[in-house]
Amino acid sequence: MDYQQIIETKLIDFIPKNTLDESIKYSLLGGGKRFRGSLCYLTANIFNADLQKIHSSSCALEMIHAYSLIHDDLPAMDDDDTRRGKPTSHKKFDEATAILAGDGLQTLAFKTISEDKNLESDVKIKLLQILTNASFDMVLGQKLDIDSNDKTTLKELENINQLKTGALLKASVLMGGIIAKVDEKTNDILSDFANFLAKAYQVQDDCFDDKSDVEIGKTNNSDKTTFATILGTEKATKHYQELYDNALKELQKIDNSDNVKAIVLKMKNRKF
Amino acid sequence: MDYQQIIETKLIDFIPKNTLDESIKYSLLGGGKRFRGSLCYLTANIFNADLQKIHSSSCALEMIHAYSLIHDDLPAMDDDDTRRGKPTSHKKFDEATAILAGDGLQTLAFKTISEDKNLESDVKIKLLQILTNASFDMVLGQKLDIDSNDKTTLKELENINQLKTGALLKASVLMGGIIAKVDEKTNDILSDFANFLAKAYQVQDDCFDDKSDVEIGKTNNSDKTTFATILGTEKATKHYQELYDNALKELQKIDNSDNVKAIVLKMKNRKF
Repeated sequence: MDYQQIIETKLIDFIPKNTLDESIKYSLLGGGKRFRGSLCYLTANIFNADLQKIHSSSCALEMIHAYSLIHDDLPAMDDDDTRRGKPTSHKKFDEATAILAGDGLQTLAFKTISEDKNLESDVKIKLLQILTNASFDMVLGQKLDIDSNDKTTLKELENINQLKTGALLKASVLMGGIIAKVDEKTNDILSDFANFLAKAYQVQDDCFDDKSDVEIGKTNNSDKTTFATILGTEKATKHYQELYDNALKELQKIDNSDNVKAIVLKMKNRKF
Repeated sequence: MDYQQIIETKLIDFIPKNTLDESIKYSLLGGGKRFRGSLCYLTANIFNADLQKIHSSSCALEMIHAYSLIHDDLPAMDDDDTRRGKPTSHKKFDEATAILAGDGLQTLAFKTISEDKNLESDVKIKLLQILTNASFDMVLGQKLDIDSNDKTTLKELENINQLKTGALLKASVLMGGIIAKVDEKTNDILSDFANFLAKAYQVQDDCFDDKSDVEIGKTNNSDKTTFATILGTEKATKHYQELYDNALKELQKIDNSDNVKAIVLKMKNRKF
């Protein structure tokens, strides 16, 4: 199933008509690989969950991700002028609009799940508990990241990565499991899968950061410690590939379909 | 009952230990009159709701309010250096920390309600629906507010005020009703009460904005249309006092206790 296409369509449905919709649409619908939303669909689909029940969570994950990118790009934060080859929100509009579009998108994520008519309240609350915790971790990770420097240790870096990126990727998988009402044992396997996957994704990001910033369409803070600067790009690349393989092994304990393999391979083989 | 004191105590319980807690505590615990949290307690208490069930909503309302103030004060928005006689968050810390503290506080509000062990899932979802909608309206109101100027009409101004301030005040009342599981008729009365109250509060704010900024401890954008500039301070003052009286009349349809009168009078008689 083409999850990415479903997400693009569904996201539009969840944006209310409002004075901020131009800036919200600009960032939310502006491309992106939709890994978080896709992971949620993928996981729920392993257990044949009703597609109607997955849309709100998948889109909410993409909303949280989009809001975090808008705020991370702000001059007071990473000060990036472009993202995915386009002007960042504060460059396209202005800083005030970018801050508010981010704030609105965060709210919209939680509103979208809380208003989903296809889910029972118990399920919605579990989803919101996972998503709010991941979203809070993400903010803490960004704070640690902007405070980090060339003295940051590998252990501290792992913690930053886990909070800033890992938490939301893991939430994407676990939320899929919640929608499908998996048992505790399956939830544990999904959790192990998500841990490997999130770690792999971040080490891979570090390897990309080590390359030219032109290629990935964003500016790059090159004075920071990353896995690639500590281990060297070659070792770091080998490390993340092993982590993806481990992730796949975990997931194959519960499913061995091509669908499952495809998304892990898509992440493993991404170019930025 | 001293709601303000209860709120100060409970807010501390809801802040997790984290790398942003200094900046979160600085803005969240930095005073404030706690009208939103108090309105929630007051409304739920009219119907003798269990106090334990009100804390999370009351604190979540104050978290959303605190986050909005941090972001509104940013240089790209209202650019205020002081609030309540203290440096604003971005002056005390830095802009990045202020943006993240605001982002974190928004998440924390929804996390606090979703994790409340004293409420059933159905109730939590209703509370989150009201709060996310009010929180979204608030962001739209702030966007319209920063885009407003001396050409803004009274009707447009009423819409801005309703979104920016009215929505969260109204949510405070309605959430109290949800916790107490009021019937539809009572909910309608609470809604009318909240509409009068929210309108009164905003016209009153406009009258304060018309006075010296030293008195209220914040800077003031004096080039904008407000009720006070259109009607004149005297007429505007009479208008908000009538609105408070109308609010009280509505509320007295369901309760005539001193508690109820006290909070409306406290709002009517506030000095800033």
